[in-house]
Amino acid sequence: MIFSLSLYSRLQQKKGSTMNLHLYYCPGTCSFVPHVMLELVKESKGQDFSSTMITLRTGEHLKPEYQAINPRSQVPALIVDGQLVTQVVAITNFLNETFPEAKILPTDPMEKAQALSMFVWMNNTVHPTFTRIFRSERFGDEAGKDSVKAMALEMFKTQLIEIDKLVANGRKFISGNQLSPADIYAVTFIRWAGMAGINPANYPQYQRYAAAVAALPAVARIMTKEGINLNTYVGN
Amino acid sequence: MIFSLSLYSRLQQKKGSTMNLHLYYCPGTCSFVPHVMLELVKESKGQDFSSTMITLRTGEHLKPEYQAINPRSQVPALIVDGQLVTQVVAITNFLNETFPEAKILPTDPMEKAQALSMFVWMNNTVHPTFTRIFRSERFGDEAGKDSVKAMALEMFKTQLIEIDKLVANGRKFISGNQLSPADIYAVTFIRWAGMAGINPANYPQYQRYAAAVAALPAVARIMTKEGINLNTYVGN
Repeated sequence: MIFSLSLYSRLQQKKGSTMNLHLYYCPGTCSFVPHVMLELVKESKGQDFSSTMITLRTGEHLKPEYQAINPRSQVPALIVDGQLVTQVVAITNFLNETFPEAKILPTDPMEKAQALSMFVWMNNTVHPTFTRIFRSERFGDEAGKDSVKAMALEMFKTQLIEIDKLVANGRKFISGNQLSPADIYAVTFIRWAGMAGINPANYPQYQRYAAAVAALPAVARIMTKEGINLNTYVGN
Repeated sequence: MIFSLSLYSRLQQKKGSTMNLHLYYCPGTCSFVPHVMLELVKESKGQDFSSTMITLRTGEHLKPEYQAINPRSQVPALIVDGQLVTQVVAITNFLNETFPEAKILPTDPMEKAQALSMFVWMNNTVHPTFTRIFRSERFGDEAGKDSVKAMALEMFKTQLIEIDKLVANGRKFISGNQLSPADIYAVTFIRWAGMAGINPANYPQYQRYAAAVAALPAVARIMTKEGINLNTYVGN
């Protein structure tokens, strides 16, 4: 049993080693999650990837050149041997299954379910809440957008508290024993919090935990590559 | 190789057959997705599940009894041998991995990535857009909530168009060759559209496709159990 799974894993490796992986990302956005996962794949088995930076601030994602790559004009987009894969969760799960030695998600079915549950909650709840803070004009008109932002800010703070509690008592990772995509999303959120004028010191457990995650070699390398820092808070 | 995977699958089956699965759901909400997946598991290998209806309309999810089960007060919640698993995507992926014979997601890695990508997009984009239509008071104050609803309604319609295009030319399923969770989410959205006063006849491909999915035996059984119909549109 163990032998045959290991053989399967080696076959996967062989298959993986011939793959052409290209990531489109924008520094500091949610594309940071698959960016770090690709670095883990590279670190664990030498399967390299290439990348292109797409600057959302200048509207590069809305240009026809990028729309031809990803019709939804979003990052991240991963091109796997010429085929487009979108969505942080789908990209990450694909990398986990294709490169099991990168240990992106736990192998125990129940631990994996819990890690995915947190990851997906971040993706469908925390992330969209932050979008309402930063892009409130997409959610309400002139008379309404300030209340959209204010209500989203309060909701986002309760979500930060939820993450703060999850990593209490010196816990290193959200998913028990290993780094998982949820940890990289969590680092992203505390950076976004600072940009929204929220002092990360209000969430001391979270702040400690995020600093430790950000210091992991693969994470630190991608932060350097993207030109981003953990501390984005400049006071308010 | 094939033998060993088949052995693995049989071990999983053995493990699965002793599982105690209990779903908390509310009729017509996104819990319909894992509800149908559990029915597929039951249909394919006789692994049964039990369930409890939680009525959101009467605030049953906010009572201490339910909060003790799921602290986030949301449905769905699946209890697996006493352990809580939340989130539609995490529950569904867990069922797929534990009961491969239910064929919840494609087995080909790239097909699976595409199916998950659509499923996750529905979960993090289409679903939250609809929440802003139905619960606009959570997103804007008295002066703002009408614009929140109006803008979300326009956005939701473009998402319905995107799904309509995906199932053009008589396509049976979103993910190529097989039913996947995205199809059940799609049925949910066209029901929600009708409730929001959107005429499903505006999306003829989508309407045809949804009717065919809703007529599949496992889907039809859960619709009957939940007491819901595909057509929710009463004109406006």
